[in-house]
Amino acid sequence: MWTAALLAVALAAPEPGLDPTVAHALISEAVDSRGAHADLTRLVDEVGPRLSGSAGAERAVVWALDQFRAMGVEARKEPVLVPVWVRGTERGEVLAAAGRPGSPLALTALGGSPGTPKGGIEGQVVEISSLAELQEKGAAVKGRVVFFNHAMGVPGDYRKFGELRTKGPAAAGKLGAVAALVRSLATATLRSPHTGATRFEEGAHLIPAAAISVEDAELLHRLVARGPVRVRLELGCRILPEAMSSNVVADLAGREHPEEVVLLGAHLDSWDLASGAQDDGAGVALVLETARLLAKLPVRPRRTVRFVLYMNEENGLRGAKTYAAAHAAELARHVAAMEMDAGAGKPLGVAVKAGPGGGALVERWLPPLAAVGAGVLLPDEAGGADLSPLAAARVPVVSVIQDMSRYFDIHHSAADTLDKIDPEAFSKTSGAVVWVTYALAESAEVLPRPPAPAPGAASGTGQ
Amino acid sequence: MWTAALLAVALAAPEPGLDPTVAHALISEAVDSRGAHADLTRLVDEVGPRLSGSAGAERAVVWALDQFRAMGVEARKEPVLVPVWVRGTERGEVLAAAGRPGSPLALTALGGSPGTPKGGIEGQVVEISSLAELQEKGAAVKGRVVFFNHAMGVPGDYRKFGELRTKGPAAAGKLGAVAALVRSLATATLRSPHTGATRFEEGAHLIPAAAISVEDAELLHRLVARGPVRVRLELGCRILPEAMSSNVVADLAGREHPEEVVLLGAHLDSWDLASGAQDDGAGVALVLETARLLAKLPVRPRRTVRFVLYMNEENGLRGAKTYAAAHAAELARHVAAMEMDAGAGKPLGVAVKAGPGGGALVERWLPPLAAVGAGVLLPDEAGGADLSPLAAARVPVVSVIQDMSRYFDIHHSAADTLDKIDPEAFSKTSGAVVWVTYALAESAEVLPRPPAPAPGAASGTGQ
Repeated sequence: MWTAALLAVALAAPEPGLDPTVAHALISEAVDSRGAHADLTRLVDEVGPRLSGSAGAERAVVWALDQFRAMGVEARKEPVLVPVWVRGTERGEVLAAAGRPGSPLALTALGGSPGTPKGGIEGQVVEISSLAELQEKGAAVKGRVVFFNHAMGVPGDYRKFGELRTKGPAAAGKLGAVAALVRSLATATLRSPHTGATRFEEGAHLIPAAAISVEDAELLHRLVARGPVRVRLELGCRILPEAMSSNVVADLAGREHPEEVVLLGAHLDSWDLASGAQDDGAGVALVLETARLLAKLPVRPRRTVRFVLYMNEENGLRGAKTYAAAHAAELARHVAAMEMDAGAGKPLGVAVKAGPGGGALVERWLPPLAAVGAGVLLPDEAGGADLSPLAAARVPVVSVIQDMSRYFDIHHSAADTLDKIDPEAFSKTSGAVVWVTYALAESAEVLPRPPAPAPGAASGTGQ
Repeated sequence: MWTAALLAVALAAPEPGLDPTVAHALISEAVDSRGAHADLTRLVDEVGPRLSGSAGAERAVVWALDQFRAMGVEARKEPVLVPVWVRGTERGEVLAAAGRPGSPLALTALGGSPGTPKGGIEGQVVEISSLAELQEKGAAVKGRVVFFNHAMGVPGDYRKFGELRTKGPAAAGKLGAVAALVRSLATATLRSPHTGATRFEEGAHLIPAAAISVEDAELLHRLVARGPVRVRLELGCRILPEAMSSNVVADLAGREHPEEVVLLGAHLDSWDLASGAQDDGAGVALVLETARLLAKLPVRPRRTVRFVLYMNEENGLRGAKTYAAAHAAELARHVAAMEMDAGAGKPLGVAVKAGPGGGALVERWLPPLAAVGAGVLLPDEAGGADLSPLAAARVPVVSVIQDMSRYFDIHHSAADTLDKIDPEAFSKTSGAVVWVTYALAESAEVLPRPPAPAPGAASGTGQ
């Protein structure tokens, strides 16, 4: 249906394709077709969980290549060496004590944790609520199980308390703790623990580390207030030798400036506890739907649109680092990058990280997004963990900001499944993503590049 | 503080004790002390899960006797023979098929299910959404795994779909199915299956039966629509010989009519997956707090208040049946009964099942309950599974109706834990229960008895 009309418009407009007719066609096709939701359904049902280094991750690579091929877009694998971590048996118990029977601890190993010896590890619990408090306790945690408790209540608390999971176990291990339990970083709770990566430095002393359910954290908190509490945990997880995997990269070559790249990314890997519908199946589906709609246009956008499905965002960021290294020579010509890794919530607006004047340029593209409730420039930070290695090359970053109010209800848990996703909200986000991507690739002007990051600035981490 | 003032009031009022001063004293003490919440905390932390026949259930009996003793109320055990069912290993899997890898099925055995052979049972899934549809399928389910799916969305749907769990597996077994999977009866879901009793007739062919998470039910529904799906389930649960357990019964003898009994009950047993904070730890705590407050009154109510903590409500109703049989001679003098088994939500009002004029009598007691938002007579059905065996004796039933809007989020699941309970809402219910109980025991008039139930009317079932 669009072919003739769009062709005419695209060639006649002063900025070809930035005409509202094109915007309307792209957005309404994304919204009405619900193509992203269909892609997501197939990804979670046909591929399932896809932790880096697993068979599922390799199935996901093959599946993604097939999707691009089916829409006539050439795609390739780019090699990425990834860490391989596998989950095993998991068992936790609060041991019986005077006046109290034992009870199960609902827990799940953190990615990167070593296993325990067979039969598990036992120890007395020390409750800690910040890394600073851990340092104050110092040698007092030696031989103990450090229980990191916190008060996460809203999504924004993830940033505040996230370091308890990513850095807490290593810090506790350095002080001689025998294991670490971290209260799940969650905004809803039905006894489901939420996993995620924990990091140990090269050569550090590794201790077993697990997330416990919010319910069990509340129980431990009550019990510790009353007297000594001992727990046992048994984790069968293992760290295996690194293995080769792949990013999946597909280009739609630009009609005028094929050397200029607009990158749209998401991460193909997920945690292993569920099919990763939200994190980041949703992002993968948004990328695929954008590729499909742009590939169908009768006239290619001015610049190259590059679709990158990164491997290993969750527990290593190797895909992102490898991409930045392999494409170092091209990064000066990456005119913009956007990563979709914030779930499947409805779109709220657009944010930008660019040089002076970048916001004003983006604002010119926003009126058509009013149709999906996202026609505003937001002050949020534009970002994405996989884009962090591009910061040194001063690649402008744009984000379609989404409603994340329920994101941490299921994040990294066994409940990150398709049923949580509202097809209508998701399709609106899909409309916003296709249009913003198109505008970035088609606009006569490119975004001014942001200033170089301060030396030593965080280079981004897996989520 | 109350002693002198209350004594004066209680003796001077035309209906001693039904004076608003007494109401205020009882309600505000319950609300301000949060004594029920303190009782509940100790029950779940010190006793934990208490499925009939388990060590936990017997600990609960001892604990409850201790609580009554500590408040100076004599309590006794009354013997109850209970079924003994124990959970074991549980594993479920959707088997790999063309175009799809295998994936775990989050499941938990239904109480009363037999185990599977070691290694589990495999079969092709047949999706069924009602017992009528099962009968239509008839022999077509032979050798298959029947998957009972439904659309539970709101608490009221529990009644509508509950028979799929209680009766579905037996009906499927009769038709030759090899196992049954029932979508959890839940109004919230984070991959936590909800257990509950399923019933097989004496001598019937038993088939393994498990609840699956809502997420996995949605997945099976999608997969079945596409083609044949096979699953495997392994359940280590076992049905053991019946064992002796107990109801816990305590009387506060009436000052004028000790032979007339107002019964306040709750059930002491819980499912095994969690500490049963809501179901029915909350009820147990409401009974204990009422006993404590009434025992402290300087003047006993006119009639005997009997506190009954029933055993085996969940999977047999043996405590209730045994109570009715053992006390058959007294039931004509049971002037009212109330069971608290609807969680810990705030009180909304009072309902009554009595003869003509019963509602009007109850309404006279309600004004003081406006203080806790419950000063209205509601048309809801007054009931309680443990009270159903009293129906034949035409015992009037009163209920403090509670907000159950979130009840089925956690009902019978591993998430039925203390953190779900709002101490303020719960303390209000506690105020309502103590006052209604007092009024029933003190009022000059007793409730007219309801008509006899129709012959063959349902005698109540475990929840």
